[in-house]
Amino acid sequence: MVNNMENFIFGRNNVLELLQNGNRSVSRIILSDNIKGNQKISQIIDIAKNKGIVFQFLPKEKFTKFNDFSHQGVIAYVSPVQYTSFEEFIAKKKQYKKVIITDGIEDPHNMGSVIRSAVCAGFDAIIFPSRRNALINATVEKSSAGAINRIDLIMVNSLPSIIDKLKDNNFWIIATDINAKDNYYDIDYCNMNFAIVMGAENDGVSATILKKADFRIKIPMLTDFNSLNVANAASIVIFESVKQTIQKSGNVV
Amino acid sequence: MVNNMENFIFGRNNVLELLQNGNRSVSRIILSDNIKGNQKISQIIDIAKNKGIVFQFLPKEKFTKFNDFSHQGVIAYVSPVQYTSFEEFIAKKKQYKKVIITDGIEDPHNMGSVIRSAVCAGFDAIIFPSRRNALINATVEKSSAGAINRIDLIMVNSLPSIIDKLKDNNFWIIATDINAKDNYYDIDYCNMNFAIVMGAENDGVSATILKKADFRIKIPMLTDFNSLNVANAASIVIFESVKQTIQKSGNVV
Repeated sequence: MVNNMENFIFGRNNVLELLQNGNRSVSRIILSDNIKGNQKISQIIDIAKNKGIVFQFLPKEKFTKFNDFSHQGVIAYVSPVQYTSFEEFIAKKKQYKKVIITDGIEDPHNMGSVIRSAVCAGFDAIIFPSRRNALINATVEKSSAGAINRIDLIMVNSLPSIIDKLKDNNFWIIATDINAKDNYYDIDYCNMNFAIVMGAENDGVSATILKKADFRIKIPMLTDFNSLNVANAASIVIFESVKQTIQKSGNVV
Repeated sequence: MVNNMENFIFGRNNVLELLQNGNRSVSRIILSDNIKGNQKISQIIDIAKNKGIVFQFLPKEKFTKFNDFSHQGVIAYVSPVQYTSFEEFIAKKKQYKKVIITDGIEDPHNMGSVIRSAVCAGFDAIIFPSRRNALINATVEKSSAGAINRIDLIMVNSLPSIIDKLKDNNFWIIATDINAKDNYYDIDYCNMNFAIVMGAENDGVSATILKKADFRIKIPMLTDFNSLNVANAASIVIFESVKQTIQKSGNVV
C-alpha cells in the first residue's frame, strides 16, 4: 500500500517539468531499469546530476505498487517542507547549536517522534541522509505533531562528509552505541556545539560514523532486554542534555 | 479498517462458548443496542457480570466496520496474552516494585512502546484500565518488540480504586502533569515501591488520579513547544529512575 501520494510526482513529463520549473524540492528520483536510453530520461538524469539530486535505477518490479498511477517508470519524491542547506545552517549566528543526526531511521513514525522531542528541547536542526532514512513526508509531519515546521531540516547526500564539516565548525559528535563504555549521562552537554547521532532501528549507527565520533554513549539497562525504541532512546539522551542545561542556567521557558 | 482479527470473537454462540468453556481471557464485550432482550444475549450478560468482564451496548452503526464477520451484534475482545491479577502481583515477593500505570493511552503503538521501555528498565508491571485505553493486541505486541511477554500486565476496571490499593501496599504514586511544579528528576526513585502514571495522548492524567497522586512531576522543556509524545515522555521518566538506581548501586546487567 502506498500512502501520502501528495509526496510523489509521477511520469516523465511531470518529473521533467518539476525539475525545470517546479518550486518544490526534490529529494530523490527513481527510474525503472527498462527505460534507460530514453531521451526524456536522459534529460531528467542530466538535470538531476546538475542539481545534485539523488537518482537510482531500480528493477521494474519495484514500480508495481505504483501501477495505479501513470508513472512511466519515473517517480520523483518531493518534500512537503522547505529544507535548509548545511551552509545556511552553519552561517546562522548562535552561541551554541544542538543537532540531531539520524543515520538510517527508516520508520516515519520514529523519525517524526525524534523531531518532536528535538523541538521540545530547543534543538536547532535535524540532519539526515537522503538514502536509507525516512524522508520528510506526511506521516513524519503527523508524528512530529507539526514540529517539522519549527526546526531546520537538513537533508544531505553523505553523512560522513557532513560530520567532518561539523567537526571543522567546532561541533562535538556524540554517537549512540549499544557497546559504548560511557553512559549518556557521563557527557557534559553544556557550553558546546554538539550533534547526537541516532542509528537505524535494527543496526544502530554505522561503523563509518562511529569511527568519526568524539564520544560514544550507551543507555544502560536494568535487564538483559536491551531493546529501546530509537525515538525513546533519542528522547532520553536529548532530555538529559535539557536537564543539564536547566540545572546550570535555570533557563526554562 | 479492522486489524488483528485474531483478537476478536464474533457471534452469539461463539462468544457464549468462549465465556463458558474458553481458556482465552476476555477483556471486553460489545453488544448492539438492537438485540437487547435476546435470550443468548441475556446469558452472555449474566456470565460477564459474574466474571467481572466489562460489557457495553453500542448503537448498531458501530458494528458496520465488522460486517465482513458474522457478528450478530456481539463481539468479544480477547487477549493474546495472559493477564496477571492485581492480587497475584501484590502477593509476589520483591524488595521494591516499580510499576507503570497508563491512564488512557489510546494509540497501541504508544502503549507497546511504553511497555518496551518499562521492560528494559526492569519494571515489574503495567497497570491499565479496560476502558479508554489501548488493549493488548497484536499491534501493541509488535510495538513492544515482544516485551509484553516479559512483564506483568494488569488490566483493571477502576484505576482510582487500584491506586488506593497500591497506596495501602506502600506504593508512592507519581503522576505526570504538564502543570506540575516539580521536575521529574527532583524525585528520588530509589528504595521505594512506586507507580508512574502516564496519561492520555491529548488530555494527560485524569483529574481524579492527579488528586490521589503523592507526587506530580513535569518534564521541563526548553521551548514553548510543549508536546512530547507520551511514550517518549514515559521513557524519559523511566530512565531517570534507572540512572538513579545505577548511580546508587552500580547494579547494571
